[in-house]
Amino acid sequence: MEAVLRQSKSMCPFLSKTSPATLRSLSTTAANHHVSPVAGKMSNLQVLAKRCPIMGKALSVQSACLGNNAFAGTFGGTRAYHTRVNRAKLHTSSSKEAQAVELENRRSKQAPYIHAPNQSNAAQNAHTGVPPVPRSAKFDYDSFYQNELDKKHKDKSYRIFNNVNRLAKDFPRAHRDVETDKVTVWCSNDYLGMGRNQQVLDKMHQTLDTYGAGAGGTRNISGHNQHAISLEKTIADLHQKEAALVFSSCYVANDATLATLGSKLPNCVFLSDSLNHASMIQGIRHSGAQKMVFKHNDLADLEAKLASIPPEYPKIIAFESVYSMCGSIGPIEEICDLAEKYGAITFLDEVHAVGMYGPRGAGVAEHLDYDAHQAGKPRGTIMDRIDIITGTLGKAYGCVGGYIAGSAKFVDTIRSLAPGFIFTTSLPPHTMAGAKAAIEYQANYQGDRRLQQLHTRLVKSALEDRGIPVIPNPSHIVPVLVGNAELAKDASDMLLQNWNIYVQPINYPTVPVGQERLRITPTPGHGREYREELVEAFDSVWTKLGIKRTNEWAAEGGFIGVGEAGKTEDTPLWTDEQLNIDAVSKEMQSGSPTGVLEAVLEKERLATAQAVSAAA
Amino acid sequence: MEAVLRQSKSMCPFLSKTSPATLRSLSTTAANHHVSPVAGKMSNLQVLAKRCPIMGKALSVQSACLGNNAFAGTFGGTRAYHTRVNRAKLHTSSSKEAQAVELENRRSKQAPYIHAPNQSNAAQNAHTGVPPVPRSAKFDYDSFYQNELDKKHKDKSYRIFNNVNRLAKDFPRAHRDVETDKVTVWCSNDYLGMGRNQQVLDKMHQTLDTYGAGAGGTRNISGHNQHAISLEKTIADLHQKEAALVFSSCYVANDATLATLGSKLPNCVFLSDSLNHASMIQGIRHSGAQKMVFKHNDLADLEAKLASIPPEYPKIIAFESVYSMCGSIGPIEEICDLAEKYGAITFLDEVHAVGMYGPRGAGVAEHLDYDAHQAGKPRGTIMDRIDIITGTLGKAYGCVGGYIAGSAKFVDTIRSLAPGFIFTTSLPPHTMAGAKAAIEYQANYQGDRRLQQLHTRLVKSALEDRGIPVIPNPSHIVPVLVGNAELAKDASDMLLQNWNIYVQPINYPTVPVGQERLRITPTPGHGREYREELVEAFDSVWTKLGIKRTNEWAAEGGFIGVGEAGKTEDTPLWTDEQLNIDAVSKEMQSGSPTGVLEAVLEKERLATAQAVSAAA
Repeated sequence: MEAVLRQSKSMCPFLSKTSPATLRSLSTTAANHHVSPVAGKMSNLQVLAKRCPIMGKALSVQSACLGNNAFAGTFGGTRAYHTRVNRAKLHTSSSKEAQAVELENRRSKQAPYIHAPNQSNAAQNAHTGVPPVPRSAKFDYDSFYQNELDKKHKDKSYRIFNNVNRLAKDFPRAHRDVETDKVTVWCSNDYLGMGRNQQVLDKMHQTLDTYGAGAGGTRNISGHNQHAISLEKTIADLHQKEAALVFSSCYVANDATLATLGSKLPNCVFLSDSLNHASMIQGIRHSGAQKMVFKHNDLADLEAKLASIPPEYPKIIAFESVYSMCGSIGPIEEICDLAEKYGAITFLDEVHAVGMYGPRGAGVAEHLDYDAHQAGKPRGTIMDRIDIITGTLGKAYGCVGGYIAGSAKFVDTIRSLAPGFIFTTSLPPHTMAGAKAAIEYQANYQGDRRLQQLHTRLVKSALEDRGIPVIPNPSHIVPVLVGNAELAKDASDMLLQNWNIYVQPINYPTVPVGQERLRITPTPGHGREYREELVEAFDSVWTKLGIKRTNEWAAEGGFIGVGEAGKTEDTPLWTDEQLNIDAVSKEMQSGSPTGVLEAVLEKERLATAQAVSAAA
Repeated sequence: MEAVLRQSKSMCPFLSKTSPATLRSLSTTAANHHVSPVAGKMSNLQVLAKRCPIMGKALSVQSACLGNNAFAGTFGGTRAYHTRVNRAKLHTSSSKEAQAVELENRRSKQAPYIHAPNQSNAAQNAHTGVPPVPRSAKFDYDSFYQNELDKKHKDKSYRIFNNVNRLAKDFPRAHRDVETDKVTVWCSNDYLGMGRNQQVLDKMHQTLDTYGAGAGGTRNISGHNQHAISLEKTIADLHQKEAALVFSSCYVANDATLATLGSKLPNCVFLSDSLNHASMIQGIRHSGAQKMVFKHNDLADLEAKLASIPPEYPKIIAFESVYSMCGSIGPIEEICDLAEKYGAITFLDEVHAVGMYGPRGAGVAEHLDYDAHQAGKPRGTIMDRIDIITGTLGKAYGCVGGYIAGSAKFVDTIRSLAPGFIFTTSLPPHTMAGAKAAIEYQANYQGDRRLQQLHTRLVKSALEDRGIPVIPNPSHIVPVLVGNAELAKDASDMLLQNWNIYVQPINYPTVPVGQERLRITPTPGHGREYREELVEAFDSVWTKLGIKRTNEWAAEGGFIGVGEAGKTEDTPLWTDEQLNIDAVSKEMQSGSPTGVLEAVLEKERLATAQAVSAAA
């Protein structure tokens, strides 16, 4: 046993750096967050072991093995991996004793979920206070579900969905349960109102009549058609890539693509931004490949991690252009530079940016070379350097579905290997036709996204004028800091009940605890009256609920950009020139802003309306 | 080192049972399927180790660690897990030497994918014949993609999608690239033609006009609406469960639900039918929980596996009602019995059965208690005993999307925990409204699914009359055995080119190699003329390509039911009484069948048409 322990210490960086006294202490203290009347048996050392990528796996496999003969035949070899850092093992050389302790620990942990029909007859275990589990006991699934739900209620992360029926002919309004009970939607990701765009709807109606409600099969078995072909060609053109592939959603696109790449590329290592979307996190996890998380938008941290990986290993840098909950923007060009230097490929999620940035709506990567793309010269641009772009058809394009775009060989590989693409029914023909119409509309018309940006600027500045704490960022997202889950829910409820304004609270796990917020998304339809009402409402709710204003955050030294010096001057990605308001902007800085900018907006709005009617 | 080796042998059932001579032999012979000009360095022992759930994980982690300082700090402890059964370690006590061999092996395996800019200057390694990899080399992603595609071409599993545009007003016809080039679709999963059902289309048009093209957000953030609420209520009612939850697809529903349950339930073990769909296999894999695969529909094997697991462990039996590629039907009642006996829960995928079986179209589980459900008495039925039912809106219901149904607590738990549900845009309102209309239509009208069953019987018997080998089964699927990937593709191509009949070949990996088939799916729209044409076409193609007929399979002793005595008499799930053709059936058995059954079908067809026009 001593030999094994020595061997373990020489191999494991944690064991080798930790003193015997600390190890003993860890192994004999119970982990606080695992304390429950019957489950207080897990030591801190075991909690740490669970976090280790090697021990964690071994522990979970072993816990399914112990006391199970059928398993033992297959997985018996795992036991020693666990016991090597197991509390009992560190205190005894008798493996039988250790095993008995473990078995008891695990069974007692399970006790809350056990149906024990004869439990009333069973004596309490004098040693542990835990009732023994009869062999005929069965797992209590209902208690398990209830316990999971109780945890969500307890940490205030239990979600109640609001019934919101967005009205195509009354954008951005919606009705609630009753049709006459109308609200203004301020948190939809239909950023440009394309969900009610007449050209999109007309195309969908026509396609529905001609080709029916569904695709009727997977892409391989009768679900491939001209709509899929032309939509994928349109997407490839949009991003100036050789090919594209459409999925049920961009969640599926990210999950399936990253899982496939990571599981197939030998020795693949992912470099993943710490704020990446759940779909990327899941895809990387499902791949089974190694992952290194770099600090959000931190190039030095990314480079250090890249440099630590052997140069010939395949590496995938997975990141986003617009991070949806804070509105920050990834340093795309710099990440391309690092990728080239270290032989990595870039995987860029443009989900919140497609339709919204760039002269043709291809996203932030296109926007960064605005003039080149407007002039039709994409070669050598940042977008051209990105290996893989993923996007959605369900936000700014107003429909549903997601996609990847990249080289022909890459796309063909994913098409041929990804179960999440292969084994599922295609999107309906009318959905694909509608999405194609939306992409083409936005590629040929800049009015919607420019008006959206102008409205964003006005909402941000109007809120800031009242001291409502907007988390500064250069994008179209308006995150308003609350900092408390219950307060955020209360504020949202009050906005809905008293002001008919719908802004969903964003709580944990979507954002970290303490960073709870209301996330506002202005659209081209959110004109002056809606904005003025919004600002009044926020001002009133902030007062009534006593939510902190910017100056209060500043007095505390600031928090995630709010009340921090310099942070509020984040330059918007859409420049004044690109928005045609440089003259207006200058006037704004020298005095009475509202009137002039409103006039410009009105001109924009009229131009938009004319363009739409001319195009229809 | 000897101590570690002894320890390993005592723990690992494989090492302990294998003689030193065999181990030595395994460790010095190269695995055949890993031989390539530069990658022939993997021993058979390493191949075996990769299959071990413990060693496989350790190997993959270690392969990302070696030669990498940053990793070594985190995962350095893994090395010994690998070297314990590593070829080099078994032959030497020098770990440095072993490591050098490994590194060289791994690098040489990677060589095909390395961009080596200075390779022309590099001398060949005299010892191995492998060019040394310069430290500045980078991974060659393009070669990797090309290699993956080459493999698909080589094993004939590379797929070329057929452009098939199914015509709502000319069901079951479709046009190819050119609109005048029409074909009859015989392989769609729009089993009942609901994709062109006028009530469904009308509902979708109305909802599209009122509520727009997309949901505009996740279910939590502005994407929840009355359409989601009422669709989920309709689904719960259909399956007589407390609650239901809608996902982007049933692939996502299965994947997200199984992954969530398996990762959250402590010590969860999956019992999975060997023919389960890819979505379930992925969900179970993604959960990280233990899995035991039982032989397809084999209750004895399932029970043996259930009995081997400790009674108090949570267990999920995951299976299907209709297995789509062979048409077999799961023994649902018997599996419920076993689940109750061993304290497992049942997860039943009714994807290919919803809309198609039962008095209200709820699937096979409902069909098994046909009269009770028709009488509105669901309590205590088999469907009532199933814990979790999953289904699709994209096959018999003609739209897109998937769902789960079960207890309120179970559904609420998945709703609250599953990332694949939480972090994705909802289905569009008009899709959900259309799907609801389709479910309600089929719940109130049996004509479509009965006509579909009658057509299925006629197609099967007409093909069998010509000796075309239909794999026998009791469901609506008509799998025709070919037994060779190229032949199946050629037959499909010939049907398309010469007969304007579209039946996609089903090859590996969807079915095992050697079981390639053409899978025919008759619908209510496939009347006598289409059928006669189909049978002529198959007869001709079978002759021209020399594909084996039933008697040839029989002469070889039969294969997967074809040409096996007794197998062709599989009783259809829809009985003669349920189809109202008991009298006809008797006449069929006594002589001239065609005329009488055709007359019954014609009556069914007319009744269908009248009901549809009355309902519209």
